[in-house]
Amino acid sequence: MAKDKKAPRPKALPPKGFRDYFGAEVTERTEMLTKIAGVYHRYGFDALETSAVETVEALGKFLPDVDRPNEGVFAWEEDKDWLALRYDMTAPLARVYAQFRNDLPTPYRRYAMGPVWRNEKPGPGRFRQFYQCDADTVGAASVAADAEICAMLADTLEEVGIPRGDYVIRVNNRKVLDAVLENIGLNEDDTSKREAVLRNIDKFDKVGREGVLLLLTGGRLDESGAFIDGVGLSAQQAEIVLAFLNSTGDGNAESLELLGQLIGDRPVGQQGIEELETISNLLAAQGYDEERIRIDSSVVRGLGYYTGPVYEAELTFEIKDEKGRPRNFGSVAGGGRYDDLVKRFTGQVVPATGVSIGVDRLLAALRAKGRVGSAAEGPVIVTVMDKARMADYQSMVADLRNAGIRAEVYLGNPKNFGNQLKYADKRGSPVAIIAGGDEFDKGVVQIKDLILGAEIAKNATLEEWKDRPSQYEVPRDQMIAKVREILDGQG
Amino acid sequence: MAKDKKAPRPKALPPKGFRDYFGAEVTERTEMLTKIAGVYHRYGFDALETSAVETVEALGKFLPDVDRPNEGVFAWEEDKDWLALRYDMTAPLARVYAQFRNDLPTPYRRYAMGPVWRNEKPGPGRFRQFYQCDADTVGAASVAADAEICAMLADTLEEVGIPRGDYVIRVNNRKVLDAVLENIGLNEDDTSKREAVLRNIDKFDKVGREGVLLLLTGGRLDESGAFIDGVGLSAQQAEIVLAFLNSTGDGNAESLELLGQLIGDRPVGQQGIEELETISNLLAAQGYDEERIRIDSSVVRGLGYYTGPVYEAELTFEIKDEKGRPRNFGSVAGGGRYDDLVKRFTGQVVPATGVSIGVDRLLAALRAKGRVGSAAEGPVIVTVMDKARMADYQSMVADLRNAGIRAEVYLGNPKNFGNQLKYADKRGSPVAIIAGGDEFDKGVVQIKDLILGAEIAKNATLEEWKDRPSQYEVPRDQMIAKVREILDGQG
Repeated sequence: MAKDKKAPRPKALPPKGFRDYFGAEVTERTEMLTKIAGVYHRYGFDALETSAVETVEALGKFLPDVDRPNEGVFAWEEDKDWLALRYDMTAPLARVYAQFRNDLPTPYRRYAMGPVWRNEKPGPGRFRQFYQCDADTVGAASVAADAEICAMLADTLEEVGIPRGDYVIRVNNRKVLDAVLENIGLNEDDTSKREAVLRNIDKFDKVGREGVLLLLTGGRLDESGAFIDGVGLSAQQAEIVLAFLNSTGDGNAESLELLGQLIGDRPVGQQGIEELETISNLLAAQGYDEERIRIDSSVVRGLGYYTGPVYEAELTFEIKDEKGRPRNFGSVAGGGRYDDLVKRFTGQVVPATGVSIGVDRLLAALRAKGRVGSAAEGPVIVTVMDKARMADYQSMVADLRNAGIRAEVYLGNPKNFGNQLKYADKRGSPVAIIAGGDEFDKGVVQIKDLILGAEIAKNATLEEWKDRPSQYEVPRDQMIAKVREILDGQG
Repeated sequence: MAKDKKAPRPKALPPKGFRDYFGAEVTERTEMLTKIAGVYHRYGFDALETSAVETVEALGKFLPDVDRPNEGVFAWEEDKDWLALRYDMTAPLARVYAQFRNDLPTPYRRYAMGPVWRNEKPGPGRFRQFYQCDADTVGAASVAADAEICAMLADTLEEVGIPRGDYVIRVNNRKVLDAVLENIGLNEDDTSKREAVLRNIDKFDKVGREGVLLLLTGGRLDESGAFIDGVGLSAQQAEIVLAFLNSTGDGNAESLELLGQLIGDRPVGQQGIEELETISNLLAAQGYDEERIRIDSSVVRGLGYYTGPVYEAELTFEIKDEKGRPRNFGSVAGGGRYDDLVKRFTGQVVPATGVSIGVDRLLAALRAKGRVGSAAEGPVIVTVMDKARMADYQSMVADLRNAGIRAEVYLGNPKNFGNQLKYADKRGSPVAIIAGGDEFDKGVVQIKDLILGAEIAKNATLEEWKDRPSQYEVPRDQMIAKVREILDGQG
């Protein structure tokens, strides 16, 4: 007789490019986001949480920074509608503002934090779901709104633990670059070529000056040996673009002068320089000096949709790269002015500016600086010597919790006591409580300092072992006090 | 000449069944979740955040509480894999535990909070994306783990603002029901019929005793006039099942006795009753009396996957339903023991128990009780009388923020001063600051109490208006003190 074939067991794996976050990975991020939200709130921004799912129509079908449409998003058909997971926070904001524009205040200042999804090739440290944390002002044409976002970004970095001197907010203006492009003969309606220039000069950090020169002209071989087509500028045109990138002076005044020399008499360029000057003056008046917020012509931001000031937060301290070489930590946030996103929906231009913080990168920076994740925070474990006393053990943990101490009873099979201590070890528990029949008879508990115990076991001589006990017998009603004493000593 | 046809504008709408959350809707939920996470953490549970996307294979293809496979989830094909949005937090937990079981401590105690997605027909107040907040203990066979979750649930409700007396945690045991079903001749391998019984008796609240009787036997017409097939039990069998639902006594002791009479000598039933007794005793010893946590045979939990204790948190205070009739607020959380979810992946039975809080329902309850959302929290608005003074206005808001006061400069077009005050009104601002050339010359600012101003405008006579000014002129260096005085007075 044929046996029923059983379905094979499912693989216990997340989809390719997705991952899970455990314990402190989650709580440290939450704490950082809470601090950021605090700053955004203090600046008068209101929270907005849009749905993770949008219509493909509302999202605009493709990521602004990839070449082909329909690439880069997770999308599917549902009842004849195409739905997709949001790939950033800006496209949903444009949809919300267009939808609720008659009810929302203008300017509308909102912040948003949460996961976004990209259907891109995953790589080391590159996942298909990651967090963003944005703040945007919609409906404010004044560059005071851009200056404010730069100031807020500086405050935010300091609030989460990046000290002054370890970061710089670099500001540029797309209008100046537009003037430069007009100067070399690329006009406003030459959109695809202009966007190709943007994407490629944004690769400066990756491929260097020579690489960008090749990409702007005839093309280059990349590391994998594939030939990347160039934009097709002449060498002379490309050199002018590269000169723009290099127009950062010793201070904002000098940078503005250098940029002024490049733009000739193009009105859009003049306007761009005036805006940068206004931003610079506003920030200086508020005490944000050039060490913190600086005009920098090399800031491009690859996205085609920026129309005015663009800005980027860079962390300037060194870390070791994967080959052990020191390098600057680099960019953790960026943004700029985009005046056309709402227009897609309503036909009306709505000026807007905003920033997006790369949450995971900023968190990695804080970890690299030792600003998060130092405190051990495993629970106190009340071990189970006698199953019948479960209610007593539970009342011990209740007492500990009521005193604000994280605690739990061991709820696995208590037979093997060694397993209980192994469990405490795996949880990073600072203290174990032990009480069996003898202890209950005497009205005491044994309190084991697990951190000290581990230290002694590793380093101590027999003499020291005797002198420095890591286990204490105390009356039941002094349990809390003793545990707290140990925890304070460990902290 | 033919004109270029422009693509039609996209509709500014979220997909059907999705919505956006604004301002306090977001922050109040965040605050509630932070409080819940605090309790879970104190109980020794660790955070886990899984990806929103899972393989359909890992999720198990269908929601456990719907009849047909492939229904209820958002799924799509990606590189030959079928991916889906998680529909709850339990299926991903089973995947994670199976994947990392050699590295995770056992028992593994984790909490998770975040959105889940259901591809179901949306209705009023019923959305396709909503929050869940779960805590589960995996790898603990002891019902002490179930008792602990019930205690934690009670603590959680009190922590977020549901006072004792306004909630009850009701506990039952699926094993007792299993014995009852065996008694009427439905054996363990009669899975589909047993699950149909579960689903239908879970509708007691909705269709009442008579409705359930019809559903268990020959079927019934629902409100829409559609005929719903019955399970096909005899009237006698159905009455025994209904008797089980009605076996709640005046106290836990009486309930246990009533249930004992129903199960006969079925070992699974005996075991179920013993477990309920243990849970009841453990909780009583910790001070959770029967007013807070109570054995209640009417708790069924429709899901087929529960194998032991099941529990539900009900809020007992009255609210008005949509027709103005008073009714109990009802269930805000539920869970139970499920021992087979990990087995799908590994072949090994892993005992587990856990609870899921319906975040939006709990938040609605807190709003109904006035426990959240009372404080006005709009920002102080510094108005713009003179565009050239923007730096001065910015330094005013900087001073306010540094003093911990939420504040912003009006960044819209300042031409029409009325628009600025309208904006302040729309933001719910408590205070507006006004300073033009005269004020700057005199070194003062005008501070307008908007809440008091609105009150006076509504109610006061001319005399009162004069006596109770709502606008004050103060020296610039006393601005903070005066604003704080007004805010404190409003609070």
